[in-house]
Amino acid sequence: MTERRAVAVVSGGLDSTTMAYSLQAQGYSLIAISFDYGQRHRKELAFAEHMAADLDASWTLIDLHAAGLTSFLTGSALTDEAVAVPDGHYADESMRITVVPNRNAIMLSIACALAVTRDAGAVAFGAHTGDHFVYPDCRPEFVRAFGAMVNVAVEGLATIEILAPFLSVTKTDIVKLGAQLQVPFERTWSCYKGGALHCGTCGTCFERREAFALAGVADPTIYESDEI
Amino acid sequence: MTERRAVAVVSGGLDSTTMAYSLQAQGYSLIAISFDYGQRHRKELAFAEHMAADLDASWTLIDLHAAGLTSFLTGSALTDEAVAVPDGHYADESMRITVVPNRNAIMLSIACALAVTRDAGAVAFGAHTGDHFVYPDCRPEFVRAFGAMVNVAVEGLATIEILAPFLSVTKTDIVKLGAQLQVPFERTWSCYKGGALHCGTCGTCFERREAFALAGVADPTIYESDEI
Repeated sequence: MTERRAVAVVSGGLDSTTMAYSLQAQGYSLIAISFDYGQRHRKELAFAEHMAADLDASWTLIDLHAAGLTSFLTGSALTDEAVAVPDGHYADESMRITVVPNRNAIMLSIACALAVTRDAGAVAFGAHTGDHFVYPDCRPEFVRAFGAMVNVAVEGLATIEILAPFLSVTKTDIVKLGAQLQVPFERTWSCYKGGALHCGTCGTCFERREAFALAGVADPTIYESDEI
Repeated sequence: MTERRAVAVVSGGLDSTTMAYSLQAQGYSLIAISFDYGQRHRKELAFAEHMAADLDASWTLIDLHAAGLTSFLTGSALTDEAVAVPDGHYADESMRITVVPNRNAIMLSIACALAVTRDAGAVAFGAHTGDHFVYPDCRPEFVRAFGAMVNVAVEGLATIEILAPFLSVTKTDIVKLGAQLQVPFERTWSCYKGGALHCGTCGTCFERREAFALAGVADPTIYESDEI
């Protein structure tokens, strides 16, 4: 049996960490890649690096901030210090301000280049059901269109399967799966504000807390504020 | 009439420079973007910057080398010092070694993010007929697939037309068009070797010389070697 290799786009968050553990449990040998895109919560990247080490995966950091990409990516609360991260539910209209245009196409295109050079037949990312409300590039139709595009782009060099195993999975079910796989949740980072502790009130903290509660899994996260 | 804006991916070479002049002649207001992807011939970027200034276009340099992308893009003669640039005709099998996997999807994805932030309805790049032989991501089917993908990725934010005006145009006809538009050809760079002068013998020099000869246009380029 040949080794099955997958490039996993990992952020240090709960979703992509659980995805990486799940892929490894399925027998994939992992090549981890993370992106600094000037995100306010770039402390998540240290969590991604530790996760890769835990899984004996190589880890590549692509610094799109150093590349100059963030010089024009202003206006998103995730990258622009002048725009506040909104509190509230992830599915709210207000969360649209956290969109970084075309982010997933940029990250997946680079991840696919890495896949070609490392002879990996798959590239995986952790978009889940809850993301669809806010991010157009987290929808099933994006994954299909991206897969079609990239296999034209690398035809003759490689064939790449785009894996988005959580596309129809809720964050609650991701937490349940992670608990089964013994994912060290305390070593994952979600909060968009990127402070010393998870704030507990931004969209992604809200979603994280809700998912643990609904899954009936103990939440090891220490939040600054316990009020939902 | 609203201003028509286009993001133009420009390399400093003959094709993309002529494309930029042509778009401007068609009434587009241009936003130029170039990429350092560790190419041996990165001196072409200075030509791109001058071209943008000549056309009163803003110029954004995205440094994918600084991003760490080139750390794994080894094995291509364009980026790996250990691999020699082959001499000979562009359409030869030997030129495959100059493929940088998924390069155009990476560059166009970033150019599309710039288009969204600058409210440009088009992104243009200068792939031409001769490129099809060697680069899978310079074919019409790639352009179609990429356009479909990106418009899913940015749905609700923008609509982007991918322009590849030279896709069915030979380099000879690009030289003819450039001559009509009074493109300063002497201020463009093609040679993959990136020396002080165009070498005259690598695939892209070969193609450049041939195109001027076939177009019946005086070639202002000074080549190191005049032997074809």
